[in-house]
Amino acid sequence: MGELIYEGKAKQLYTTAEEGILRVAYKDDATALNGERREVFAGKGIRNNEITSLIFRYLAENGVKSHFVKQLSETEQLVREVEIIPLEVVVRNVLAGSLAKRLGRSEGEVIETPIVEFYYKDDALGDPFINDDHVLFLGAASAVEIETLKQEARKIGDVLTELFSKANITLVDFKLEFGRTKDGAILLSDEISPDTCRLWDKTTNEKLDKDVFRRNIGNLITVYDEVLTRLEEVTKHV
Amino acid sequence: MGELIYEGKAKQLYTTAEEGILRVAYKDDATALNGERREVFAGKGIRNNEITSLIFRYLAENGVKSHFVKQLSETEQLVREVEIIPLEVVVRNVLAGSLAKRLGRSEGEVIETPIVEFYYKDDALGDPFINDDHVLFLGAASAVEIETLKQEARKIGDVLTELFSKANITLVDFKLEFGRTKDGAILLSDEISPDTCRLWDKTTNEKLDKDVFRRNIGNLITVYDEVLTRLEEVTKHV
Ligand SMILES: Nc1ncnc2c1ncn2[C@@H]1O[C@H](COP(=O)(O)OP(=O)(O)OP(=O)(O)O)[C@@H](O)[C@H]1O
Ligand SMILES: Nc1ncnc2c1ncn2[C@@H]1O[C@H](COP(=O)(O)OP(=O)(O)OP(=O)(O)O)[C@@H](O)[C@H]1O
Ligand SMILES: [Mg+2]
Ligand SMILES: [Mg+2]
Repeated sequence: MGELIYEGKAKQLYTTAEEGILRVAYKDDATALNGERREVFAGKGIRNNEITSLIFRYLAENGVKSHFVKQLSETEQLVREVEIIPLEVVVRNVLAGSLAKRLGRSEGEVIETPIVEFYYKDDALGDPFINDDHVLFLGAASAVEIETLKQEARKIGDVLTELFSKANITLVDFKLEFGRTKDGAILLSDEISPDTCRLWDKTTNEKLDKDVFRRNIGNLITVYDEVLTRLEEVTKHV
Repeated sequence: MGELIYEGKAKQLYTTAEEGILRVAYKDDATALNGERREVFAGKGIRNNEITSLIFRYLAENGVKSHFVKQLSETEQLVREVEIIPLEVVVRNVLAGSLAKRLGRSEGEVIETPIVEFYYKDDALGDPFINDDHVLFLGAASAVEIETLKQEARKIGDVLTELFSKANITLVDFKLEFGRTKDGAILLSDEISPDTCRLWDKTTNEKLDKDVFRRNIGNLITVYDEVLTRLEEVTKHV
């Protein structure tokens, strides 16, 4: 069944018989505060795998390539192995969370032109927010790659904002990871799920994402299920 | 003698008889921790006025325009009035202070291509570090202005690094402010002094800037005097 090569907070990565293809197994763990708080929610892995698979398929149909190869089972998918670029690429459509506080503006303010941010993936440093010059200094990505990351992030943002909107959900902000393939191409990787997106119901503004766990304001499984069901409904014609 | 229009932590601004020209009076106050700590050092205003005037003159000779018109007295200068762009533009040649901590790298590491950073000038928010997209969102500067700020900051960095180097001083990092003139041009403004630069003696690595106050490691006036004397020596042929 392949060798476990990485165990993160949310997923496990295994080798497969095929060179350059990995198996991702989604776990039921939810973590917050950079892993300080941890809880297990039976069925979370299934939801995040289903949601991420659906989104990566939808992105492919809309011209965005990703590491996604295919869904294997309820909790597993096959992906292309990449060298992860050590940046969390965050796109913001609506002001929320840390940025609202940082800029002294109120949560919920619409950001006309989405803001793209880089955070340096380093748990020990607490994934610090950095700018393009820091990215270059750290050698995390080249100048050309930085432009590609920004462009891709904006394009993905446009496609996903529309998808979630059809599901009556505001895509407030989201985090992406990208990787390099053997031939140097940049590929969207990791996951896109309520763990990595801030999602608000368009009508009620109810939170439909990991904030229900972070803030202890509801049942995580119910909420993730709601997101999956709505996304399935608006994509089922495909 | 003109009307006091602004009193900051380090300087006072007065109107003059001439429209569009301000008188800046340098104070003897030293502050740290965003103004929480404050002490008066007799003669600090004189040094910072002399140093800033010398540097703005030197920059002008090297093709960098600024708001500086002329030195009026030991503690005063005349400057062109501008609309200050609410950004602190920081240039870093060597890793130090908050950035070294932030990136988990050691103080003193040379940064091959200088890093330029923007901080949003807002005392209540603690002058948060921001990126280009935040600058645009906040309306602090336009995309064209952002490019001008970065280019000017790098050019100023090159000129000043060489100047300080001749004085056997490493220009570790420094903060600039820019303003808009009535005709929309962008002009280097404010001050450039040991209050706004991190300066290390090239031979001993001794700190020759406001860090001696921040960290209580020496006599501020002695150190500022040393910087002024050295700069006067290397520019006296002019
Ligand atoms: N296609 C891929 N090839 C190789 N690694 C990948 C790929 N997609 C995602 N990864 C990496 O696999 C790991 C997934 O595990 P998980 O999301 O649980 O990690 P994590 O706990 O969030 O920690 P971190 O992201 O900081 O490593 C991440 O490190 C992610 O960057
Ligand atoms: N040419 C100029 N025209 C108008 N304002 C200027 C000009 N040059 C500098 N300033 C502004 O004048 C003030 C100088 O005062 P000082 O440096 O003491 O302020 P401060 O205490 O640092 O506070 P802050 O910079 O946050 O306003 C600053 O606000 C600076 O931005
Ligand atoms: Mg992860
Ligand atoms: Mg000031």
